[in-house]
Amino acid sequence: MTPSKLSHLDATGAANMVDVGDKTETVRLATAEGFVSMLPETLKLIQTGNAAKGDVIGTARIAGIMAAKKTHELIPLCHPLLLSKISIDIETDETLPGLHVTATVKLTGKTGVEMEALTAVSVACLTIYDMAKAVDKGMNIQNIRLLQKTGGKSGDWSANIAASER
Amino acid sequence: MTPSKLSHLDATGAANMVDVGDKTETVRLATAEGFVSMLPETLKLIQTGNAAKGDVIGTARIAGIMAAKKTHELIPLCHPLLLSKISIDIETDETLPGLHVTATVKLTGKTGVEMEALTAVSVACLTIYDMAKAVDKGMNIQNIRLLQKTGGKSGDWSANIAASER
Amino acid sequence: MTPSKLSHLDATGAANMVDVGDKTETVRLATAEGFVSMLPETLKLIQTGNAAKGDVIGTARIAGIMAAKKTHELIPLCHPLLLSKISIDIETDETLPGLHVTATVKLTGKTGVEMEALTAVSVACLTIYDMAKAVDKGMNIQNIRLLQKTGGKSGDWSANIAASER
Amino acid sequence: MTPSKLSHLDATGAANMVDVGDKTETVRLATAEGFVSMLPETLKLIQTGNAAKGDVIGTARIAGIMAAKKTHELIPLCHPLLLSKISIDIETDETLPGLHVTATVKLTGKTGVEMEALTAVSVACLTIYDMAKAVDKGMNIQNIRLLQKTGGKSGDWSANIAASER
Amino acid sequence: MTPSKLSHLDATGAANMVDVGDKTETVRLATAEGFVSMLPETLKLIQTGNAAKGDVIGTARIAGIMAAKKTHELIPLCHPLLLSKISIDIETDETLPGLHVTATVKLTGKTGVEMEALTAVSVACLTIYDMAKAVDKGMNIQNIRLLQKTGGKSGDWSANIAASER
Amino acid sequence: MTPSKLSHLDATGAANMVDVGDKTETVRLATAEGFVSMLPETLKLIQTGNAAKGDVIGTARIAGIMAAKKTHELIPLCHPLLLSKISIDIETDETLPGLHVTATVKLTGKTGVEMEALTAVSVACLTIYDMAKAVDKGMNIQNIRLLQKTGGKSGDWSANIAASER
Repeated sequence: MTPSKLSHLDATGAANMVDVGDKTETVRLATAEGFVSMLPETLKLIQTGNAAKGDVIGTARIAGIMAAKKTHELIPLCHPLLLSKISIDIETDETLPGLHVTATVKLTGKTGVEMEALTAVSVACLTIYDMAKAVDKGMNIQNIRLLQKTGGKSGDWSANIAASER
Repeated sequence: MTPSKLSHLDATGAANMVDVGDKTETVRLATAEGFVSMLPETLKLIQTGNAAKGDVIGTARIAGIMAAKKTHELIPLCHPLLLSKISIDIETDETLPGLHVTATVKLTGKTGVEMEALTAVSVACLTIYDMAKAVDKGMNIQNIRLLQKTGGKSGDWSANIAASER
Repeated sequence: MTPSKLSHLDATGAANMVDVGDKTETVRLATAEGFVSMLPETLKLIQTGNAAKGDVIGTARIAGIMAAKKTHELIPLCHPLLLSKISIDIETDETLPGLHVTATVKLTGKTGVEMEALTAVSVACLTIYDMAKAVDKGMNIQNIRLLQKTGGKSGDWSANIAASER
Repeated sequence: MTPSKLSHLDATGAANMVDVGDKTETVRLATAEGFVSMLPETLKLIQTGNAAKGDVIGTARIAGIMAAKKTHELIPLCHPLLLSKISIDIETDETLPGLHVTATVKLTGKTGVEMEALTAVSVACLTIYDMAKAVDKGMNIQNIRLLQKTGGKSGDWSANIAASER
Repeated sequence: MTPSKLSHLDATGAANMVDVGDKTETVRLATAEGFVSMLPETLKLIQTGNAAKGDVIGTARIAGIMAAKKTHELIPLCHPLLLSKISIDIETDETLPGLHVTATVKLTGKTGVEMEALTAVSVACLTIYDMAKAVDKGMNIQNIRLLQKTGGKSGDWSANIAASER
Repeated sequence: MTPSKLSHLDATGAANMVDVGDKTETVRLATAEGFVSMLPETLKLIQTGNAAKGDVIGTARIAGIMAAKKTHELIPLCHPLLLSKISIDIETDETLPGLHVTATVKLTGKTGVEMEALTAVSVACLTIYDMAKAVDKGMNIQNIRLLQKTGGKSGDWSANIAASER
């Protein structure tokens, strides 16, 4: 990857929305991930609550899905998009210890959905923090990143392959 | 800090909004931080664009401020609040390399503003990612956490002090 | 109709947004209705105000139209859609007594607009309640239901025909 | 109760927002309810899904809470309010058969929260419809009404007492 | 009035939200106005439609009221506020010819409501344009300005008095 | 241009959203403009702040872009649209004195984007007012109008040509 130019800045350096009108409609998919690290006792409480009613993880999943639909309202230069699928997976990571959030977003359209996947992950992590902060304010949201994207003119991209090429 | 109970889950484990009606109105302040790590070339491009017009950093700051005001729409169990101040500071971190985002939120009210500060940081980081992703999809949002809070019944809290007591 | 599976729950029972990416774009239409029952005096007041300026019914119609556009922000697993038409009809029902609200929503797209029609009806009814509650808190929102839908893979559906087949 | 005047219409009959600036800040509470009637098989599916992961009822509860916070964006003449508590209870009603939704909203402020409770109930019911409509389009949202309110100049009100006085 | 400093820019020139936490809660009122000039035939059509159902003017009034409540979502550095009253008046101006929109907003709070009144006027004017643009794209939104404000530390201000002092 | 009928009012005069389902998808473009007139000292302050960090103009540009995406939430009868480009240009006008805002919006879709361009201009002007009002409450938002539109069944339109034909 050869960095060259920030696409949202025009010739004069002013921020403006990129024109995607001439791009082709293709199926586009993006997957992102992030982590919330916490005290082992906090993780246990979430797991126990979850065994009974599933509410921390269930609420974070809903929050992430709803946030993906709001991406263009949050990120100033994102285009509004007709997302065709959003799914969020939240798993416990005993070694962190904490929770691992993964979001996959799909679209048939003219621009990629990386920001939607990253926004879904971020808001799901924030919701986990909110629901457990009464017992653990030292939680930490870590390593939010794009895992892979497919579709679009710029082609497919995967964090693993990119890392091996650096 | 002794973790005991997830405040948003009621006796049956169901998620509901905590009653803050009987809390006292006090001045509450929260500061949070986060980082976007990137390739050195990407940071240079942002700095250059910034020298001319300031748009990546300026846009991320506005996005973070506007997101803080939307916190209760994004995080399901957060209360709507009348924030009296939001400020966001974005500095370059040459050793990362990348950008360091700090947000401070203030309120005279019945509940803390930790989530508002964390949301401001998250959305400012996402906006930086969005504006530079054309040249660097491997950027990484790292270590979003609460630095400190003051005010409210649970008292003051600081990440440094909490860490030293663990 | 043979109930079989809740489409929004995945194999593990977790709530996620259904993938509509492979569905065909067809013209889709949905009509829903609902009622607000009230004291006869309340209905008379609305009709009188309405004769002069039309504001209770006019305001409820606008509120319903605007709510249809917000459906995907209100209902967690609804897809964002490019509605091509929303119309709302509010008539007096002397025998109830009260108001009868009907909403029709149209789309050329990949998923049905039942929720948009039902949301428009619900918010129009809530607005009527709001504007008359100073004189009649005992009003009642009744029998919100889908009347019919056309278009899409699952085919046409009509409340009357479904009822006769039960 | 003697109906007299629609508070949102001014002297000329035009719709405008009532001035609540001179009202006193008091604790205000409102409870509303509503029902979703469905086929017995649909209820069984929701209960089964719920036993495993709680997602239909959990998602509807979150949707109702988030909608209460959006009431002033949905109902044109409602004031923005700093809700201090929102709780939603969803129980199965075997005789309907269907689900019974109850919402309680609390505020220390200058105006009542009836509309917030009714909006929470409406959107929770719509969400239930959405999540089960693949198996039962004939579901029906019934009898959304205010159960009681306390606080404020107009005093306490209860549906039961009002009914007995008609 | 002696211009001195742009309050939203901090010492380094960066845009941030001003801290209003230490301001006193007082009753604050602001009135703004604006005009939509149009062809005489367009005005006649609006008046005729209005005679029958009042919908152009009624719809613009509702849009302006709802927009005032969204001011802090639209204007990046505006604080969220608990508006206690919004009223909008739309009158025909035969000499323009066109419509004259006036908005008054009231609050008991820590910051002024000038932006809320100006936003209400702007969106009411835009709505008038939208509803008549099929017959007159040459309409023009003119002279949106603050007429007067009262309350707050900076004291009362009136466009007439300010003009006479220039 | 021969004014004939207000498209948003149906046969009974009731406001409803026009059906655009049968329109063809074409490339549509609209450009609008507006002005903020101010004291010469105010303009100088904005220019100076701008030389250092660009924040008044940069913030107004972001606000305008984000507002264009919210047009269908603000203007009751506007359709939701997938805007493919939004660009905003803000220049100083020494003779006014003040700032000149121009917005261009592009879409491949079924309905025009005039309202999106006009809304972007309006909110950018309001943001300029907000950021400078501490020093100049007498600023005035002037002459917001459509400059030209292309695409769609009603064909191209230009303010200059229309004016010459009046």
